[in-house]
Amino acid sequence: MSGDAVWKGDLRGARVAVVGASGAVGKELVEILIDAGHPLELVDVYARRAGPLSIRGRSLAMRAFDAERGVDGLGACDVAFLCTPNEASRVLAPALARAGVPTIDLSSEFRMHPEVPLVVPEINAEALDGAQRLVANPNCTTAIGALPLARVEALFGLEEVIVASYQAASGAGAAGLAALDAEIAAVARGDAAARAEGSPFAAPLALNVIPGIASIGADGWSGEELKIEGETRRILGRATLLVEATTVRVPVARCHSVAVHVRTRDEVDLERLRDDLSRAPGIELSSEPHGPRPRECAGRDPVCVGRLRTGRRGTRSLCFFAVGDQLRKGAALNALQIASVWKAVDGRRSR
Amino acid sequence: MSGDAVWKGDLRGARVAVVGASGAVGKELVEILIDAGHPLELVDVYARRAGPLSIRGRSLAMRAFDAERGVDGLGACDVAFLCTPNEASRVLAPALARAGVPTIDLSSEFRMHPEVPLVVPEINAEALDGAQRLVANPNCTTAIGALPLARVEALFGLEEVIVASYQAASGAGAAGLAALDAEIAAVARGDAAARAEGSPFAAPLALNVIPGIASIGADGWSGEELKIEGETRRILGRATLLVEATTVRVPVARCHSVAVHVRTRDEVDLERLRDDLSRAPGIELSSEPHGPRPRECAGRDPVCVGRLRTGRRGTRSLCFFAVGDQLRKGAALNALQIASVWKAVDGRRSR
Repeated sequence: MSGDAVWKGDLRGARVAVVGASGAVGKELVEILIDAGHPLELVDVYARRAGPLSIRGRSLAMRAFDAERGVDGLGACDVAFLCTPNEASRVLAPALARAGVPTIDLSSEFRMHPEVPLVVPEINAEALDGAQRLVANPNCTTAIGALPLARVEALFGLEEVIVASYQAASGAGAAGLAALDAEIAAVARGDAAARAEGSPFAAPLALNVIPGIASIGADGWSGEELKIEGETRRILGRATLLVEATTVRVPVARCHSVAVHVRTRDEVDLERLRDDLSRAPGIELSSEPHGPRPRECAGRDPVCVGRLRTGRRGTRSLCFFAVGDQLRKGAALNALQIASVWKAVDGRRSR
Repeated sequence: MSGDAVWKGDLRGARVAVVGASGAVGKELVEILIDAGHPLELVDVYARRAGPLSIRGRSLAMRAFDAERGVDGLGACDVAFLCTPNEASRVLAPALARAGVPTIDLSSEFRMHPEVPLVVPEINAEALDGAQRLVANPNCTTAIGALPLARVEALFGLEEVIVASYQAASGAGAAGLAALDAEIAAVARGDAAARAEGSPFAAPLALNVIPGIASIGADGWSGEELKIEGETRRILGRATLLVEATTVRVPVARCHSVAVHVRTRDEVDLERLRDDLSRAPGIELSSEPHGPRPRECAGRDPVCVGRLRTGRRGTRSLCFFAVGDQLRKGAALNALQIASVWKAVDGRRSR
C-alpha cells in the first residue's frame, strides 16, 4: 500500500458476487471493479430488481435476488459483497458463510458482533486471519474519521474524540441523492419549500441541514452517532475510548466531512503529524487553507485531511477536518481492500 | 421580554439612522423596523450607493454615504445603526459618539474593545449603563450559540465549550447569497463545477461545505473561530472560558447552526434544562427529533434549540444543536433590542 496512490486491491481471477448492485454503494463497487480492470464477465450482479444494470456504457446482466433460493448460484463464488439492507444481510451473510463463500457485509448488521472482524485495512488488517468467512465493512462516516484518528492514536494516543459530521445525501443511498437533485431543481425553479417525493430524509435537504442521522433514541443519541462511537472503538482497538458525535445531513451530493476535536495522551507535535499524514496510506494532506472540501474529494480514493491546529485545551489537544468519498473509502473501496487483504491472507494460509 | 414572543424593542418616536442599509443586515433591520410599526418617515437610510431602497413594496430615500461629510445629517438622530464594514465603522462610530449620537456598531471593529460593551440583551443587558455612546453587536454565530450557553452557564456552570458551525451563505452578506443562488441555478442546469462570479467564498458553495470562515491564521485558526472564542467569553463574562470552534460554510440561504458539546461544573439535569429553555426569553425548544433546522427557522426571531442529550463525558457533559436566523438574532434583531434597552436605561438616567 503506497501513500500517494491508494491501493485498490487485487482480486484478479476471482469470481465476484455483488448483491445489491443497483444501490448507490453496489454501483460504486461495480465501477471500481471495472476501473481496476477486473474481468467483469466473472462478476455476477444481483439486486432486488431484475434486468440489466447500465454502468459506464456497459449493460451487465443482473438477476433478481430470490430469498427462497438462498445462496443458490452464489455458492461457487470466491468472494461475495453484500451491499444490502440489514434485513437481507441478516439472512444472506450466515448462509454464504456456511456455504464457504468469503463474504464482506457492508450493512451495519454484524459490525458489533464479537466474532465478526470490523476492518479498515490500513488500521487493523491483522484482524483478518483467513479463518473467518464473514467480515464487516464499517459505517461510512466512521471509516473516514478513523483513518486520521488511527494516525493520531499511533503518534500521541487518543484520550477523547469529539466529532461533528457534515454528511452527504448519497449516504442515504440512491434515493437520498435523487431527493436532493429533485429539491435543487425545485429551488432553481423558485419552489423552495418542497420535500421531494420518496425522500428518505425527515425534511427538505436542499438549502437545509438536518441534525441527526437515522432514528433518535429515547436518550437523545442518533443511530449514526452510536455507530461512530462503537465502531471507532472496535477499529482502533480501544474498547472504552470516549467518542462523542453529532451527526448532521447537509446538501452535498457525495463525500462525508467531519470536524474533529481530540484530546491526546502525549503532547501533539503538529510537524510530526503533518509528516506522518503526508506519508500514510489512504490519506492525503490538504494544502488549501479552506480545505479539504467535498466537491474536490468526490470520486477520489483518499481521505483528505486539513485545518490541522493545536486545540484550545492545551498542547495535548488537536483539531482537524477530514473529508472522504463515503461511497469509496467509506464503503466500496474499503470493502474491496478488505477482500484483497483477506484473499492474500487466505492464500498464504492454504499454501 | 416574554418567553413566547420575542421582544423586538420599542424605539417609537426615535429618529433612526441605518448606515449600510442596502446590505443583507441593513435591509433586514429596515424590514424589522417596518414590521414593528416604527414611523419610517423618520428613518434615514444611508448606503454607499445612492438611490431609493426598495423594501416590502416601499421605496425609501437613501443617500450615498459621503465620508468627507462625516456625521453630517446624522448628528440629530436619536440612534444610529452601523451595518457597515470594519473600515467604515472605524471612522463613523467614534465620530457619531463624539457628536452624542448613541451608536450601535454591527461590525467586528469594536467588539473586543474594553470600553465598548458587547451585548446580547437577554444575557448581559446590565453592561448598558446609559453613559456609553457606542455599543457593539456580536458576531452572528456567537450570538446564536451564546443564548443557550448562557442558560447552561446559569444552571450548571460552563467548564469547556466545543462548537462546530454550519453557517449560511447570507452570513457573508448579499454577495454570498447571490453566489449560492447563481451556483444552485447552474447545478440545476447540469453545470456543477462553476464558482459564481463575485462569490465571496474560497470555492463553489453549492453541493459543498467550506471548512474555515474568514482568513486562516498561521496558527491554523480562522478569524470566525477566534471571534466565537473571544466574544463568547466577553458576553458570558467568563474571560478564560475554554471555547474551541470549527467554523464551516454550508449551502444554506439563511440561519446559522451550531453543534455544541460542553462540559459543566455541576451535574446536568436535562429536565431542569428543558424547563428553563422552554421559558427563556429569545429561545424556542424544538420538539422535532431531527430538529431544529435552518429552513424552519429562517425569518423567525428565536434561537431554536434541540438534540439535547447528556454527553459521553459523564453527567457533567451535555450536547445540543442550536439554529438561529443570523440576520435576525445574529444581527438586526439583537441590535434593535440593544437600542431599546439602552434607550430605556438612558431615559431613566436623564429623568
